[in-house]
Amino acid sequence: MLSRLKSSLVLVLALVGTAALAAPAVELKSPDGRLSIAVSLDRDGRASYSVSRLGKPLIAPSSLGFLLADAPKLDRGFALESRTAATEHDERWEQPWGEQQFIRNRYKELDLVLREQEGLQRRLGLRLRAYDDGVALRYLFPEQPNLKQVQIGEELTEFNIASPGTAWWNTAFEWDREEYLYKRTPIEQVGLAQTPMTLRMADGVHLALHEAALVDYAGMNLVRVEDRRLKAQLTPGSGGQPKVVRTAPFATPWRMIQIADSAARLAESRLMLNLNEPNALGDVSWFKPMKYVGIWWEMHQNLSTWSSGPTHGATTANALRHIDFAARHGFGGVLIEGWNKGWDGNWVADSHKFSFTEPYADFDLERITAYASSKGVQLIGHHETGANAANYERQLGPALDLYARLGVGSIKTGYVADAAQAKVLGSDGVERYGWHEGQDMVRHHLKVVQEAAKRRIAINPHEPVKDTGLRRTYPNWISREGARGQEYNAWGSPGNPPEHEVNLVFTRLLSAPMDFTPGILAMKTQQPAGVVTTWAKQLALYVVIYSPIQMAADLLDNYEKHPLPFEFIKQVPVDWSETRVLNGEVGDYVTIARKQRGGEDWYLGAITDEHPRSLELKLDFLEPGARYRAHIYRDGPRANYTTAREDLVVERREVGSASRLVLRLAPGGGQAIRFEKLAGAR
Amino acid sequence: MLSRLKSSLVLVLALVGTAALAAPAVELKSPDGRLSIAVSLDRDGRASYSVSRLGKPLIAPSSLGFLLADAPKLDRGFALESRTAATEHDERWEQPWGEQQFIRNRYKELDLVLREQEGLQRRLGLRLRAYDDGVALRYLFPEQPNLKQVQIGEELTEFNIASPGTAWWNTAFEWDREEYLYKRTPIEQVGLAQTPMTLRMADGVHLALHEAALVDYAGMNLVRVEDRRLKAQLTPGSGGQPKVVRTAPFATPWRMIQIADSAARLAESRLMLNLNEPNALGDVSWFKPMKYVGIWWEMHQNLSTWSSGPTHGATTANALRHIDFAARHGFGGVLIEGWNKGWDGNWVADSHKFSFTEPYADFDLERITAYASSKGVQLIGHHETGANAANYERQLGPALDLYARLGVGSIKTGYVADAAQAKVLGSDGVERYGWHEGQDMVRHHLKVVQEAAKRRIAINPHEPVKDTGLRRTYPNWISREGARGQEYNAWGSPGNPPEHEVNLVFTRLLSAPMDFTPGILAMKTQQPAGVVTTWAKQLALYVVIYSPIQMAADLLDNYEKHPLPFEFIKQVPVDWSETRVLNGEVGDYVTIARKQRGGEDWYLGAITDEHPRSLELKLDFLEPGARYRAHIYRDGPRANYTTAREDLVVERREVGSASRLVLRLAPGGGQAIRFEKLAGAR
Repeated sequence: MLSRLKSSLVLVLALVGTAALAAPAVELKSPDGRLSIAVSLDRDGRASYSVSRLGKPLIAPSSLGFLLADAPKLDRGFALESRTAATEHDERWEQPWGEQQFIRNRYKELDLVLREQEGLQRRLGLRLRAYDDGVALRYLFPEQPNLKQVQIGEELTEFNIASPGTAWWNTAFEWDREEYLYKRTPIEQVGLAQTPMTLRMADGVHLALHEAALVDYAGMNLVRVEDRRLKAQLTPGSGGQPKVVRTAPFATPWRMIQIADSAARLAESRLMLNLNEPNALGDVSWFKPMKYVGIWWEMHQNLSTWSSGPTHGATTANALRHIDFAARHGFGGVLIEGWNKGWDGNWVADSHKFSFTEPYADFDLERITAYASSKGVQLIGHHETGANAANYERQLGPALDLYARLGVGSIKTGYVADAAQAKVLGSDGVERYGWHEGQDMVRHHLKVVQEAAKRRIAINPHEPVKDTGLRRTYPNWISREGARGQEYNAWGSPGNPPEHEVNLVFTRLLSAPMDFTPGILAMKTQQPAGVVTTWAKQLALYVVIYSPIQMAADLLDNYEKHPLPFEFIKQVPVDWSETRVLNGEVGDYVTIARKQRGGEDWYLGAITDEHPRSLELKLDFLEPGARYRAHIYRDGPRANYTTAREDLVVERREVGSASRLVLRLAPGGGQAIRFEKLAGAR
Repeated sequence: MLSRLKSSLVLVLALVGTAALAAPAVELKSPDGRLSIAVSLDRDGRASYSVSRLGKPLIAPSSLGFLLADAPKLDRGFALESRTAATEHDERWEQPWGEQQFIRNRYKELDLVLREQEGLQRRLGLRLRAYDDGVALRYLFPEQPNLKQVQIGEELTEFNIASPGTAWWNTAFEWDREEYLYKRTPIEQVGLAQTPMTLRMADGVHLALHEAALVDYAGMNLVRVEDRRLKAQLTPGSGGQPKVVRTAPFATPWRMIQIADSAARLAESRLMLNLNEPNALGDVSWFKPMKYVGIWWEMHQNLSTWSSGPTHGATTANALRHIDFAARHGFGGVLIEGWNKGWDGNWVADSHKFSFTEPYADFDLERITAYASSKGVQLIGHHETGANAANYERQLGPALDLYARLGVGSIKTGYVADAAQAKVLGSDGVERYGWHEGQDMVRHHLKVVQEAAKRRIAINPHEPVKDTGLRRTYPNWISREGARGQEYNAWGSPGNPPEHEVNLVFTRLLSAPMDFTPGILAMKTQQPAGVVTTWAKQLALYVVIYSPIQMAADLLDNYEKHPLPFEFIKQVPVDWSETRVLNGEVGDYVTIARKQRGGEDWYLGAITDEHPRSLELKLDFLEPGARYRAHIYRDGPRANYTTAREDLVVERREVGSASRLVLRLAPGGGQAIRFEKLAGAR
């Protein structure tokens, strides 16, 4: 054994995590001066970064670099070749639709370039950004003679959390990727995890680890190596290929650390959107946020089937009935699943049989879309692929053209398949097996969005690639699934527990819209527990879970039967000018107020886990001096997520910005409020 | 989203870990009936296995199967096609050298074949074995039309530990693979780990998770996904290739779970050897276990260098001096590092410059080996490769031929390089970057051993592939490193703490011999703490750590200066007929007694961590009625691993099998005893 090499390594390892590292090569502070991200080089020329808040370490020195499949690893022997001066940026940009109309994008940024001092003398760039609500870095692979094609075997980025805390996380590399219940553990018990992962430190500071702008790269997962040291594990390449293959120059996705003083502030952060590129599509006013109903829950309730035959759900008659209902109650869209040929076999093994242009014989697509148009309603398209992206891409042009011709403005896509069983069309044209978040599938999802945009169609993928804020750049990427939705309450074992949605707000939903499909009123389902929320909580979810398309997921009859709660579902908007997270703790409770875009009313949603809550609120988000009629949909005195879910009280009172409200949430309950601005009240 | 698929998955997940699984398809009990391994199929035809002891679950239902890079995954839709009846085997086999001469190999075995019921109808076999000291399974890929070449993307085997406990483990996928300090954590805090991993359950049952017979496959690491669920992560393929590429038929390595009632019984288990194939080399009496000295510690102490020039350690004069010393004191070998051209650059980046046939000009190889032979001493060869296996393989024939001609009977090889930076020659002849335990390097190590065997040369690799018991099949694979050895006490930061060797006994050393290089007497080194053991512990290590070659690692002068401890080092054997682990707790202390092969004496070594111990021993391992002179090398009254390491007391007393001894071990101390059988005492 060789002491020179071994000992230098050992010293390096010992130094990491202590203050004994060389002085930072580069440090960047946030505009408010509270956050700092620094990059250092040790005596072996290994780069690491660290993050602190008010001088206190949040991320201890953490590795940077890459294993390459066909070249020596890129992680040491570096010296700082150049750096730019830190520049400060402050702009305001407008979302065409969203949870907030105008977003401030204020940050400091600098680039640095490392160069190997020996051997291939390759260069690796880093771009650092510091915001008041977090920091981020991305790798830049410059054009250079000794690194043209980059075959990444693994990214070596680590997140070495500096102090103990609690983590909320979800397992990675499992079946359907994101559809698991979130876990709450000490950081030291994190296993193999997806991002975003949320951390609460002992002093109440909250972090979320995630990535932004995942384009033509593999999705990042985190594995805890030891202690609190988390390490990137990129999603494997399809067909046993390297995890990422790119040609320099290119930039990786941002590795992003959201940082906030509280859970509520974390949920208000727009860091991920700010890290993405501006709108690349121009005018997207052709997409209108909307609520919708659909032929969907009836299949989940085993009342009809996706497959053809006497139980087929997607019949012309059923479609027309839903269109009538939508028109009558002001819904913009009707989703119909199971309309196209391919549903009669094993959806995954026979996924190549899905046709995206041929309706079943009992589904008169032309008549249905014409009827919908005549009623001012849109058919919402549906493309289940069984994760056979290759089959879908071969049909993509005609399939989108068809919908475009018929006035279908948005499509729900689906990618049901087991782990690593997506059928992927590589950039070389070869069909391979791949993971849902491998580079080839990441490419596929963006391709669908781009092709759809050309036809003024919006995309809402289920079993999707994770959201990394690309809706800023491609605003027709309107929503997605990517977590356990309502359907688990139909047949899940177990269904979603009362804390599920409160977990989502501070984890999955940090990364943006989700097509959760709330609004179930018939709480008994196929599975014994049913929907374990109160009615008031189902209503509150329309405010709490942001999405520009929101389903009223229940059977139409149930809405007809229950006009009181339905009234709120009909009224609640899906597009907002402002959002305030009024309070909240991860997994416990949260209250969110949002102001209707293009209107003066505010809406509020509060939800809790299995524990009752009494939440005192100031209404200081309301316009000072104005008067509002609060339409309050609250848990009744007996309300409870197991025994009295339908105990809903609706009451009205007048309030102003100086008012206080006490929200009493039942176990598994919630509260939804419309603050209707009263004319001339000032 | 699609309920049929999603819901069936969710149900399956909910059932795993409960008793609600279908009745086992196959169950196999150990010969003593205490252990059981069972394979079950759920309603989706997914196979899992579970393990119990006395009816109590040890391993809860755990997944089986494979992701394939070029075909649908192989993990479900199975039915049991066939199974063999359980057969019982009971044999005794002899080790040509070892810690124990005769080993009983008693087990039950059965094979089963699963067949996919749809689609490709592929077959996957499983071979189960149940021993009294553990269970094991391996996958069998039969020859079949729809699975000829098998490209494994990942092995899906899990180890779902049924109840809480403590784990001793070491991180995987780090720098030099195995050279880290073992960690002790709750099972729920295991991260990304190598095997063997040792677990102690609340009831005192000990498990070790490892593999046996790693041949032409990738090494297995374990990642904790969540809770106590560990999952295989095979070492990646070189150059971004699939992790394993094989042609059916073939069998994977054994996945093995050693099970014992105590730490001591665990350390006595020979399960791994029993799972390997018998000796494939025939007579290997040409390898003689031996102790050796060498030109090695002086480089670690910065007194000389591997590289050439005025400080070069491997000079003819120095070699002759060591040969004289070895001959004078009865050592069989002299290791000399730095003798060959290639040491003057960066050993890793310039690893292609290593020549294995050209000595430096100041090292007269022919004269040295001739002189050694004349003195009855062997030169121990040295091949440092810088992990450039490709360069080594190109020179392998001539390099081994040279040593064979010169009478060199064993070679220490070395593979220093950073993670995934081994330069590997694939079976396709292409040179790639790879991990130390990827399939290509696994192939390389065995190739070196096989080529060496043809020339009657034994191999002792450092920075090796892990030991999986292949010394049974290839008894010229005599020892290896694969853990933090003594040299960390020369320059490590930190060095090896007092618990290190006690951890090794119950973790790394479960998997067999280690060339640890004990016997340092000059306890001050380059690093501030020095060697943090007492002298008595250094002596005890010769008994506690088994290896058929053991170094007296210190500078020759230090042995000349300290004849008292040196006496034990000269006397202690390196080949044994019996081994008894008399007591021990992982990481705390252990006492091992071994009987000299071909002699009547017993030797005993006891070591402790930083805590003093008083261990009462029965000597009932001694021959009843016989009398022994106990030569006791014990910690003196002031002995302590920080302040009085050299406080050694040597005393003699007569004992028999009915005697009791109380061993008093100092903090960081130990005790070494030779039980010299007295003639005619019966």
